[in-house]
Amino acid sequence: MFVFEHKIRVRYGETDQMGFVYHGNYALYYEESRTEALRNLGITYKELEEAGIMLPVLDIKSRFRKPARYDDLLTIKVTMETAPDVKMTFHYKVFNQEKVLLNTGETTLVFVDRETARPCQAPDYLLEIWRPLFDEK
Amino acid sequence: MFVFEHKIRVRYGETDQMGFVYHGNYALYYEESRTEALRNLGITYKELEEAGIMLPVLDIKSRFRKPARYDDLLTIKVTMETAPDVKMTFHYKVFNQEKVLLNTGETTLVFVDRETARPCQAPDYLLEIWRPLFDEK
Amino acid sequence: MFVFEHKIRVRYGETDQMGFVYHGNYALYYEESRTEALRNLGITYKELEEAGIMLPVLDIKSRFRKPARYDDLLTIKVTMETAPDVKMTFHYKVFNQEKVLLNTGETTLVFVDRETARPCQAPDYLLEIWRPLFDEK
Amino acid sequence: MFVFEHKIRVRYGETDQMGFVYHGNYALYYEESRTEALRNLGITYKELEEAGIMLPVLDIKSRFRKPARYDDLLTIKVTMETAPDVKMTFHYKVFNQEKVLLNTGETTLVFVDRETARPCQAPDYLLEIWRPLFDEK
Repeated sequence: MFVFEHKIRVRYGETDQMGFVYHGNYALYYEESRTEALRNLGITYKELEEAGIMLPVLDIKSRFRKPARYDDLLTIKVTMETAPDVKMTFHYKVFNQEKVLLNTGETTLVFVDRETARPCQAPDYLLEIWRPLFDEK
Repeated sequence: MFVFEHKIRVRYGETDQMGFVYHGNYALYYEESRTEALRNLGITYKELEEAGIMLPVLDIKSRFRKPARYDDLLTIKVTMETAPDVKMTFHYKVFNQEKVLLNTGETTLVFVDRETARPCQAPDYLLEIWRPLFDEK
Repeated sequence: MFVFEHKIRVRYGETDQMGFVYHGNYALYYEESRTEALRNLGITYKELEEAGIMLPVLDIKSRFRKPARYDDLLTIKVTMETAPDVKMTFHYKVFNQEKVLLNTGETTLVFVDRETARPCQAPDYLLEIWRPLFDEK
Repeated sequence: MFVFEHKIRVRYGETDQMGFVYHGNYALYYEESRTEALRNLGITYKELEEAGIMLPVLDIKSRFRKPARYDDLLTIKVTMETAPDVKMTFHYKVFNQEKVLLNTGETTLVFVDRETARPCQAPDYLLEIWRPLFDEK
């Protein structure tokens, strides 16, 4: 299992007239958080893409418990529970600065070979990085 | 049951560097589509809000089957399968101009009284509008 | 001179907590409007790009006179005052359904050859389309 | 004069299919940067709003010199050249991690009293904070 925490400050342009973060913008918060989670492991999504691997999102789920507001300093807790193969699933918990849980979510991404446009295995060097994290006994 | 179809043209700014519509932007397509679905029934979300009813999104799910691309003229098929009470659930199917199914999704919204900030029943005039659509025998 | 009018309905997710359309979102309204203006002349930006011509925005100016609000049905009046050469400049006036002028703006785009990544002349077939519109006496 | 530097990492969802940051998204970068510039002076835009002062954007200008790309770690240099009165003008220079100047911009915001919806002077405590920064001899 792999856990990582990332902080994001809510922008004015990310709120809507209800005075809350527009629900569609959590996708951006999830994206930024999993990117930083991977970077923390030494994996840059940009380099993956340059090496011919794309990672389109296959599905996303999000549950809105309490509203996030303008200027909130959110903590997004990213968890990967199982080692990736062709797919990679991240779970998210979004908290505000008062440690109130605002939102939970989940995204599944697929490794796709840009050449063939077909799903593919994660590259070996990723598997090497992940192995110790998901090693079971 | 209630079904409605709405068309949306993909903007350049809604794509990402993969050349596809960024997955977070489907939330906007769903929103626009259900708003037009309601308007078609004589219900304006704007008036609801002015009457003190808010409709925050409680959860969203989305599955990305094929990519939507720049300038695609999407057809979003909105379905409401059960009559709303405190909540209202919409299902979406997004097709491109070749009638290929690109995406399926679902959002649940909650009726909230702005005064009390508590969930509430849908107003009576909405129930009146919905009754014939969901009348079962 | 070339004038075209396009209508856009304001989405909820395009507002901010001030209750107005977020100023950054006018860039999307301008983009959609000039795309439809060109389409009306028989020019598809998508096809231009597929033919190896990119049209990055060189500069944008926007002045916010009155706020646009959720569910407003905006009319965007697009004007091209001079025939394009390496650059193409559009002017915009945004009105709401009460015909109140909300916003004026301007964008300049550059024709860029994707191969060389250098500015280039607009393709001949575009010049042919534009000639009668800007013919001076 | 007042100068402040802020860093922003480009999100995937902020790019478009040209592979660059979509031009409309610079408005968000400017907003985040001037918010942090003000915070650095002890001024929170959120508190201003809670005190009944709104700061809508009056105009925005932006010139795109070189593209910003996914995962770029941008430095936004925010400058305020003259002391605010009813208006407040910020200038921006956006650099990438190679210190290449990508974009220059400018936004003017107006102090508006929420009660009267009319322009108003900046509150006294802001003038106190700004005085030493713009003190002329």
